[in-house]
Amino acid sequence: MKIALAQLNYTIGDFEGNKEKIIKAIKEAEIKDASLIVFSELSVCGYPPKDFLEFDDFIDKCQKSVQEISQVCNKIAAIIGSPIKNESGRGKPLYNAALFIHEGRVKGMQRKSLLPNYDIFDEYRYFEPNQHFEVFEFKGERIAITVCEDLWNTENHPLYLCKPLDELLKLKPTLLVNISASPFHDNQPYLRLNIFSENLKKAQIPLIYVNQVGAHTDLIFDGNSMAFNSNGSLAIRTKFFAEDMIIVDTHDLRTAVVTSDFNIPQRTALIHDALVFGIKEYFSKLNLKNAIIGLSGGIDSAVVLALATEALGNDHIKALILPSRYTSAQSISDAVQLADQLKVKYEIINIDEPFATLINTLHPYFKDLSADVTEENLQARLRAVILMAFSNKFGYILLNTSNKSEAAVGYGTLYGDMCGGLSVLGDVYKTDVYELAHYLNRGTSVIPENIILKPPSAELRPNQKDSDSLPLYEMLDPILQLYIEEQQGPTEIIAQGYDAQLVKRVLKMVNANEYKRHQTPPILRISKKAFGSGRRMPIVGKYLE
Amino acid sequence: MKIALAQLNYTIGDFEGNKEKIIKAIKEAEIKDASLIVFSELSVCGYPPKDFLEFDDFIDKCQKSVQEISQVCNKIAAIIGSPIKNESGRGKPLYNAALFIHEGRVKGMQRKSLLPNYDIFDEYRYFEPNQHFEVFEFKGERIAITVCEDLWNTENHPLYLCKPLDELLKLKPTLLVNISASPFHDNQPYLRLNIFSENLKKAQIPLIYVNQVGAHTDLIFDGNSMAFNSNGSLAIRTKFFAEDMIIVDTHDLRTAVVTSDFNIPQRTALIHDALVFGIKEYFSKLNLKNAIIGLSGGIDSAVVLALATEALGNDHIKALILPSRYTSAQSISDAVQLADQLKVKYEIINIDEPFATLINTLHPYFKDLSADVTEENLQARLRAVILMAFSNKFGYILLNTSNKSEAAVGYGTLYGDMCGGLSVLGDVYKTDVYELAHYLNRGTSVIPENIILKPPSAELRPNQKDSDSLPLYEMLDPILQLYIEEQQGPTEIIAQGYDAQLVKRVLKMVNANEYKRHQTPPILRISKKAFGSGRRMPIVGKYLE
Repeated sequence: MKIALAQLNYTIGDFEGNKEKIIKAIKEAEIKDASLIVFSELSVCGYPPKDFLEFDDFIDKCQKSVQEISQVCNKIAAIIGSPIKNESGRGKPLYNAALFIHEGRVKGMQRKSLLPNYDIFDEYRYFEPNQHFEVFEFKGERIAITVCEDLWNTENHPLYLCKPLDELLKLKPTLLVNISASPFHDNQPYLRLNIFSENLKKAQIPLIYVNQVGAHTDLIFDGNSMAFNSNGSLAIRTKFFAEDMIIVDTHDLRTAVVTSDFNIPQRTALIHDALVFGIKEYFSKLNLKNAIIGLSGGIDSAVVLALATEALGNDHIKALILPSRYTSAQSISDAVQLADQLKVKYEIINIDEPFATLINTLHPYFKDLSADVTEENLQARLRAVILMAFSNKFGYILLNTSNKSEAAVGYGTLYGDMCGGLSVLGDVYKTDVYELAHYLNRGTSVIPENIILKPPSAELRPNQKDSDSLPLYEMLDPILQLYIEEQQGPTEIIAQGYDAQLVKRVLKMVNANEYKRHQTPPILRISKKAFGSGRRMPIVGKYLE
Repeated sequence: MKIALAQLNYTIGDFEGNKEKIIKAIKEAEIKDASLIVFSELSVCGYPPKDFLEFDDFIDKCQKSVQEISQVCNKIAAIIGSPIKNESGRGKPLYNAALFIHEGRVKGMQRKSLLPNYDIFDEYRYFEPNQHFEVFEFKGERIAITVCEDLWNTENHPLYLCKPLDELLKLKPTLLVNISASPFHDNQPYLRLNIFSENLKKAQIPLIYVNQVGAHTDLIFDGNSMAFNSNGSLAIRTKFFAEDMIIVDTHDLRTAVVTSDFNIPQRTALIHDALVFGIKEYFSKLNLKNAIIGLSGGIDSAVVLALATEALGNDHIKALILPSRYTSAQSISDAVQLADQLKVKYEIINIDEPFATLINTLHPYFKDLSADVTEENLQARLRAVILMAFSNKFGYILLNTSNKSEAAVGYGTLYGDMCGGLSVLGDVYKTDVYELAHYLNRGTSVIPENIILKPPSAELRPNQKDSDSLPLYEMLDPILQLYIEEQQGPTEIIAQGYDAQLVKRVLKMVNANEYKRHQTPPILRISKKAFGSGRRMPIVGKYLE
């Protein structure tokens, strides 16, 4: 049997648009002689719909889409994802279901059993877990359908008591299908491959895995749908970060005539591609075209400019260089050279005059007090005021240029350089920003060498360096990573040889700056633990402070 | 048997502080001859600890607290709340447990069965649900312990398949205990009373219910712990919004010799008390003392000033009046009169000079374009820059003054009037802000009458009124409430007689401004659906837009 893996890019709540894409794919698969087409999890509404799921109107529209899609599935069968009402009157009001559609109607459904409710996932907020399993007979196959997490439970430390694969294997299926909405992070492609291969060693039947592609604000879905042979080897995969449809024959999967190397880009290249895709998606799905970026002459804004130029095109970017009395001539010329190399239009607007006026306005109240962080923040906030004025006047969306290291320790000005519609590097540590810069320069020079080489500085007071206030990033980042990504406490981190005072200082800074991160833009997620909805910390608290 | 209901105010992660409070209460209860003392849910660490629960170090510290508290429980028994490791190696790594402590050690525990995972709750993120029930024999009683939500399932439409009360009643208990962390909203006190009374009609045994008191950033816990007679009538309750300890005798609960009217303040008074408490808690738990507020002469900032003055004392408030060329003389004199009546120090700082300088700075780029929202936002942002400069220089925390109606429809300037450390009125609709103003004026005039009577205006352009851009608040607020609190879609709202065009316009405004609300300060929650962690909506999407 020929099966189409339809990796599509849905927009949350865009029922018409999503339905049209699905129907177009069904017709295309039919022309290519597929007997079955498989779409991703919650395909009719896009994933994650979040609290829209709590609106009856939204669920009714999902149901209407399913009906309309069913009408075009006559000869071909389809597996699509949709929320389904729980009519039992007990438990959560919905199920997260995979619908098996054939001959113009929904012939059956497999509801999701394992509801991820960690990190960025909130599925138990909406859905009742399934406890009933069945297989679907179609064209001589006994198809066992699973929804995303259903195939992610591991033997060693199962996060759930229910084991969907074991239950399904009791029913002697001949084919496994998994419909997913599995978001990207830098290790996720490898993780998926390993988990599926491990499960298939037990199941010894082929697997068709279809993921969604597209970004939804902070969450980037890489696609990378896959078909596996019965022996657990990879037969074929779809593209990363793009819509794609491939057709596989189950006969081939059983005989393993097709095998493929996984062959994915290295980590920095993947992160680069994910960020460019994330920017592009944010703009296109909100019907926006143009971005504005404040260029400091430093590496963060340089990398953001380069990524945004790739995503949106140089004609759609405006750069502002906003020097103050503390900005070096070198910073300005580095920024200018960068904009020139990327062919991006820029303006140089000196903020000294409005800064001086404000200092003057405040003088009666601050008079004898010495300059401190107030005057530094004032400059950062004035820059934000100017960038936002351009944003309001011309409809440019401000891209935030803070990196994860800064966001972690609160080295940034709230309502200043922490502004923006979208944070491009908020999940990228400073040391990885350098990696990205080198990667961007892999062919021709995009980012001037001096921007990469000079020591980082906020240039908000004379001769300021980041290292005046912070540990060197090479020392800071590994500690942050252990605390944030690995969720290790001070004892565990210190036990690995890090200086105890430094560890305590860093962890305290991270916790004490939760209030700043609460007000930052959404952050494109490329790690397994990004700031944002995946990391929920108290603002008021006294732990490790 | 005499039982102490210990309603304490915990700080999240403050293990030493929480432990000292608990031990002090145990000793006090012992002096008062209590045989058992009951604390609230997760009392050793405070509720909600959020992702701190994912740190082994945090859980180890909870365990250490439990051990140290156990050592003082010899004659007296105690029921305390703590996260407990799930040692089975299957399922989520923790349980949310009530520990029964006596004779210096943990004698048993009842783990929570029903894990709320809606609105602001995320318990299934951390905890495995319990499926094992027992009663604890102590001094002739058979005590059935429940943790918060365990007693909230209703017969008509149970949200959970498990029914802890039914399971426990099979074990013939003589006394019910519920340890809770039940956050306040304006209808919650009544809801609790009804749910417990309903459950007790079935159980026919007394109930001891102990809630936590205190605010944790946005979430306000009102306390209001209660003891119920066997017949479901209220015997006694503790204070709202304050630590309290009362002692009840189970003999009295069985004979229902004590009954109490619920006797709670009316809605506006409750909201008032909750907001004052919420402000006070935010400052005291962060070791902050002083607030700064921008006074426009309008009603929102006036109400915030009055509430903050009650919470922190007039000596700890600084008001800034920041007129521009568009500010009426009346607005300034209203603001001055308000500050004078509340004995709050204020400064009048005209923003025209920095505004003019910025307009001049931007002129080469904006030159021939007519003034629009850009220049309006510029004023709001300049005010924020000045308020934040005072905040930085003197350590004042900026209180945000946006109301829920504005936050809903995006009638506010990001990085302008939407700034602040804490939003006081972000969960209070404009029509309720007027109710609060009247309530604040119930004795002597606190808020000048003219501030209440004049039509709302942002005063960012000549003769501007809110009603130029928005429907009248009396028309807007009911639609917002149906959409936000009642989660009704357009069809349901229109069916109730609201104008279809208006409903669609309002819902579209709400959805389109999700991006602004993403970057706002935490909002004190006083309704059953506040903006913030209780309402999770996509920013990028196309539903109702």
